[in-house]
Parts: sequence; C-alpha cells; structure tokens
Amino acid sequence: MSHKQFIPPKRTLMGPGPSDVSVRVLHAMARPTIGHLDPQFIMLMDEIKGLLQYAFKTNNALTLPVSAPGSAGMETCFVNLVEPGEKVIVCVNGVFGKRMVENVERCGAIPVIVQDEWGAAVSVDKVEVALKENPDAAVLAFVHAETSTGVISDAEALAALARNKNCLTLVDAVTSLGGVELDVDGWGIDAIYSGTQKCLSAAPGISPVSFSEKAVQKIQKRKFPVQSWFMDLNLVMGYWGSNAKRAYHHTAPVNALYGFHESLLVLKEEGLDAAWTRHNYHHEALKVGLEALGLELTVDEACRAPQLNAVRVPEGVDEAAVRTYLLNTFNLEIGAGLGALAGKVWRIGLMGQSACRENVVLCLEALDSALNNQGYPHKAGAGVAAAESFYEQ
Amino acid sequence: MSHKQFIPPKRTLMGPGPSDVSVRVLHAMARPTIGHLDPQFIMLMDEIKGLLQYAFKTNNALTLPVSAPGSAGMETCFVNLVEPGEKVIVCVNGVFGKRMVENVERCGAIPVIVQDEWGAAVSVDKVEVALKENPDAAVLAFVHAETSTGVISDAEALAALARNKNCLTLVDAVTSLGGVELDVDGWGIDAIYSGTQKCLSAAPGISPVSFSEKAVQKIQKRKFPVQSWFMDLNLVMGYWGSNAKRAYHHTAPVNALYGFHESLLVLKEEGLDAAWTRHNYHHEALKVGLEALGLELTVDEACRAPQLNAVRVPEGVDEAAVRTYLLNTFNLEIGAGLGALAGKVWRIGLMGQSACRENVVLCLEALDSALNNQGYPHKAGAGVAAAESFYEQ
Repeated sequence: MSHKQFIPPKRTLMGPGPSDVSVRVLHAMARPTIGHLDPQFIMLMDEIKGLLQYAFKTNNALTLPVSAPGSAGMETCFVNLVEPGEKVIVCVNGVFGKRMVENVERCGAIPVIVQDEWGAAVSVDKVEVALKENPDAAVLAFVHAETSTGVISDAEALAALARNKNCLTLVDAVTSLGGVELDVDGWGIDAIYSGTQKCLSAAPGISPVSFSEKAVQKIQKRKFPVQSWFMDLNLVMGYWGSNAKRAYHHTAPVNALYGFHESLLVLKEEGLDAAWTRHNYHHEALKVGLEALGLELTVDEACRAPQLNAVRVPEGVDEAAVRTYLLNTFNLEIGAGLGALAGKVWRIGLMGQSACRENVVLCLEALDSALNNQGYPHKAGAGVAAAESFYEQ
Repeated sequence: MSHKQFIPPKRTLMGPGPSDVSVRVLHAMARPTIGHLDPQFIMLMDEIKGLLQYAFKTNNALTLPVSAPGSAGMETCFVNLVEPGEKVIVCVNGVFGKRMVENVERCGAIPVIVQDEWGAAVSVDKVEVALKENPDAAVLAFVHAETSTGVISDAEALAALARNKNCLTLVDAVTSLGGVELDVDGWGIDAIYSGTQKCLSAAPGISPVSFSEKAVQKIQKRKFPVQSWFMDLNLVMGYWGSNAKRAYHHTAPVNALYGFHESLLVLKEEGLDAAWTRHNYHHEALKVGLEALGLELTVDEACRAPQLNAVRVPEGVDEAAVRTYLLNTFNLEIGAGLGALAGKVWRIGLMGQSACRENVVLCLEALDSALNNQGYPHKAGAGVAAAESFYEQ
C-alpha cells in the first residue's frame, strides 16, 4: 500500500452527525498543542465548564467533557450512577435506548424496559406505570431526541415523574443539546450526556456530561467501585471537579478541546434560544420542500425533532443508490435508517451549522435530481421553490 | 465570566507528553470534517491501519486506534483480554504498572504483583519465578517504557518467558512506540496499547492498539461479556476489523484521526529505525549537556529511556519554581515527578518532534538560566557548550 497525505473532499454534512464544522472550529483545532497541565490549559478548562453549564442550563459543579465520543459519555453515566443489582427503568424507542439496556446489563444491574414503537415518543403513561410497579427503581433512563428515528420525547414530564418517586433521571441529549429546548436544572435531570458532532457542530470525539448534586452524592457513596478506571468520576473529579487539584488522571485531548471550546463560544454568541429557533425554522423550510417533492416525514408532528428528519423512502426508489448519488454528484451526505428503520427511511440532519438556508436548498435540489435519476415521478423544482417561498415570507 | 477565543501560547513541549505537534499534523486536523461512514473515510481507516501495523511491526489484523486517550487503550486491553477470576501477573515499577493493577481488579480478576523499585527495570528473574509459581496465570502485563520514571524494561525477554508458559503478554507502549525498538510480532506480544502524544507527536486523545491472533481467539471465546460497551472489541471489530462491514459502532473522532494519520505518515517517511536512532542521538546530546551543568540522570544507563529523561532535582533547588520559571521565561514545558518521585525529579521528554537539536539546546540554556535564578552553583554556559560540541563531532 502506498501511503500519502489525506485530503478529504469538502462535503455538506446533513446526516445524523457529524454536522458541518465551521472554519472557526477547524482553525481552533489547528492551534499549537500545549500541555494538559499548563496553567493556560487549566484556564481553558474553566472556560469550557462555564460554557457547558450555559449550554445545559445548569449550575452543576460536575459538568465536563468526557475525553471520548458520545457512547463513552453514555457509559460514563451508567457505570458511575448504577450499582450492580439495582433496577433501572429504561425507555426504548430506538437504537440508543437499546444501547442503554446493554449498558445497564454490563453494569450487573437489572433493566426494566418500557418499550415504544420506533418512531414514536416515549409514553409518559407507560413510564408512570413502570415507576409505580417498580418503587425500588434507582434510575429512569431515556433518550431525549432519538437519533435513530428523529423523535423527541417529553424529557420535562418524564423527569418530573421520576423526581416524585425519588428516582434519578439519566438522559441522552446527544442529538438534542443546542438544537431544541433542554433545561437540565429546570427539569431536574440528574445525569446527562451529549455529543459534540450534532447541534454543537464541533468535530466528533468528545462527550459533554453533567451530574446533579444528588447524582454526585450517589456516586460518592457507592458500595462497589466503578468498573471502569477511565470513566470513574471519583478519579476524573480530581482533574475536572469544582475544587479539583487538577491532579493528573489522563492526558486530555487538547486540540479537540480547543475546537469544542470554540463551538461552545459560537453557541453562546448566537444564544441558546436563537439556536433552538433557527433549528426549527430551517426544519419548517425543509418540510415544505420535501412535501412539495411528494416526500413524507415519518414522525408525528407532535414529537418531531427538527434537527433530524426521518423521510420515508418512496416505493420503488433504491435507498442506498440515492445516498450514493447525492454524495457523488452533490458532495452531500444524508443518513441511512438504522436498526428497524434500515432501508425504510433517510435521515436528514439539520444540526448546528448545517441548519441553514444554503443546506436546505442544496438538499432539496439534490433530492430532486436523485428522484429524477431514479425515474421517480415528482414535480421537478417544486421542492426548492416551496422552500424559497417559505424563506421569502 | 466573559468568554473569548482561546489563543494558546506557543510552547516548546519537553515534558512527559504531549510532545511538540508539527504544523503538518496541526493542519491535517483542520481539514474539513467528513462523515465517519463516508467511503473516503473508510479508505483513511485502511491507511491508518496499514501505517499502524508498520509502526508496531505487526501483521495483526486487529490493529486500530481506540477513540480515546492511552488510559482507555490500557482499559481496552484489560477488559477484553481478562475474564473475572483469572490471574494476571502485573509488573509494577511506576505509576502505570500500578494503574494496570487497578484495571485487573476492576475486571474482577486477581493481580499477582511483581514489584520493582521506581526507577529500576522490571526484573526478568522475578517474572520468571512468578510465572513458575503461577502456572495458571492467563496474562503477563508490564510497561515497556515507564513514563513516570523513564525506565525501559526488556520487553523481548519478558514476552519470551510468558510465551514459554502459554501465558499471553499485555504491554504498555505509550511512551515507547516510535521512540525505541519495539517489535510486536518479532517479540510475540499479544496485546499492546500506546498513545499518540508521545513519540508519534500527534495531539493527545487517541490510543493505538493491536492484538495477536491468540488474543483475538481468547476475546471471541470469552465466558463473560466484556464489561464495557464502548471498549468491547467484539463490537468494535464490526467497524475496524479485517473483514468488517464498517457497521456503525460509535462516531469516530474524524479530525483527530486526520492528525494521527499524518503523524504516522511522518514516521513512515523518516523510517522506524531512523526515528529510534534520532531519539537516542538527541538523548546523548542532552545527557552530556546536563552532566556539564552538574545535573544527574536518575536511571541506570542500562535501562534508560532516551525519550524520557528523569533528572534529579539538586539539593536546595525548588523543583516547582524551576518549572514555572522555564514556562514563563522560555515558554518551555518540562515535567514534574509523579507518585514516589514527586518533588524529587524533573522529567525531560525528547519525544517525536521534540527530539531535535533546537529543543536540546533550548532546554540546556533554560535550565542554566533557572539554576542561576535559584542561586545554584554551576558552570554557566557549560551545558549548551557540551551539547553543541557533541553535535559538531
């Protein structure tokens, strides 16, 4: 094999993540590496913590970026919060709820599964019943925005139910953070994890997490040691915690954190509310465009995640061929279906920097061309026209 | 707190890592992010695997970068290779050997500790005895180059002993890979992990690992599931393995891998042997310079790691004040002692791009100035002069 420099193509990223990373964030990652115990880096850590508290809407002292992708953020929450033998109510309505169940099992704990359809929201009623039937449940875990289906569940209502039963709440906010309303303190969420490569538009590889005071107390009083050394927050707190001595635990991913910091700065400059509004606005434009093309969103309007649009693949259209065509002809990435939805839907992301007019128009133009290429009957040009007219309102 | 862009100072990194990251690698990280399932990215993954096999000197099919720092690479090796109840012989002669013991315990396995002095190599004789006394030991684990002390152990001899007893070998090569001779296949190592921020001079955040066929068989035949979902190689193999379907497991840290790939390319271009020779050459220059300043390396010449030089802090000199002075006056980072050596040594790294004449001369000049600042009697200018004369030979 001959080895040479890798010059990636310039794609437009409208899959389920990563989303488009801005030049500002890319440049930040290219700044000179400094030591992870350098006083300047410690300052940066404080800045990141403050900005993350803003993004999560929390005052939690234990708010930090885990030095690994979202799945490791998920595992960090479970291995710290859950002890062997405990009962955990897990809501499953897609891939990531299922992954939560696997995490619970690997902690030696007992999952109580609340199952909903793929593409439906978590049923608040079913969770209420499950909490009643399992008064000994230590944790309620659910996904706020299911990346596999594009569904938002009512995190506020679910967290309130758990709080009433003295049960901790553990939430997946990988796809929701920065894209839709999320209020960690206001809703009383005890443990939450997210990713950088969705609505924050940083490069993938970091997982922001936050833990309430109640969660920290449970972690500090554990009977069994945390099974993971790398993810043990009792150790990580010495480096990232509030009164931390910045004791060496592991070497932080310095340049990735430069980029992550810059992405949080971009969010702060725009403002959380403005970011949520923007995601919804471009979702509306995409929706009218897709409908004008004769394409259909699969998720009920009431629980649709604006930042991740699951679109039904029309009868007779080759799902994978369309994605390949978009990539090769338009340098445009959209996502395939996952799990139960594989082959049945495309997932079109409007996350972070990708939630903009240029992307919406490009995507509608490219889908139009792809449907044409597939010989699928549709009104050529109608998608872009509908979106443009939405924008000109 | 007012939030603003973070512009790091330009440091010279001669601590225990991160080492200086070249502009080539920094620029690579700033290239446009593409999807982790993009065909172009899959091509990059193949390239990285090939280059990593070169760096490790192995044909192991299961050779890949774990999407998290070296400590997660360590944990990936232990949680996959070790089952609850098994016996693991762990050689402890510094911080990272101790961390291995904690990993073994958290796997529910039984560590058999072979203890050596901090600053001494792992005793081959003691390991031979331990293997004889524990014929049921499943794994022998040791650190090739102890980052906390700057000691190299005889990995070849240790691996040979284990192989004779049908015991698998698990090696920490965080500080050794790319800096000193390492031959995974030639020495018969079964599981190995490293870091990117030492002799490879990439940014921190990734941990390259490699597993022999025997190790893979043990992992595939496990009685108990791997306790970590994120690190379970049975799942990761679907994305990174030899005949992998590139099934989604987690979102790879795309831009960090651009940088890592570039650093492996730099190594390949120089050549492994040339890189090892260069590390030793600049170590020799640093050594004569330090000696001319009246400073002393603490590790026996026979087991000294050229890329990490532990230097005794002279009586009456304020260890931390010197490091702060170097950072503030020369933008130069060197490392403190860790654990048993805290306050007693400095650790001067000559790793990867940091192993160069400019850095050696700067470090000697800066230490000269710092000793002067501390009022410590020494021959001013003698360090730089000795190193320059070594280079001019």
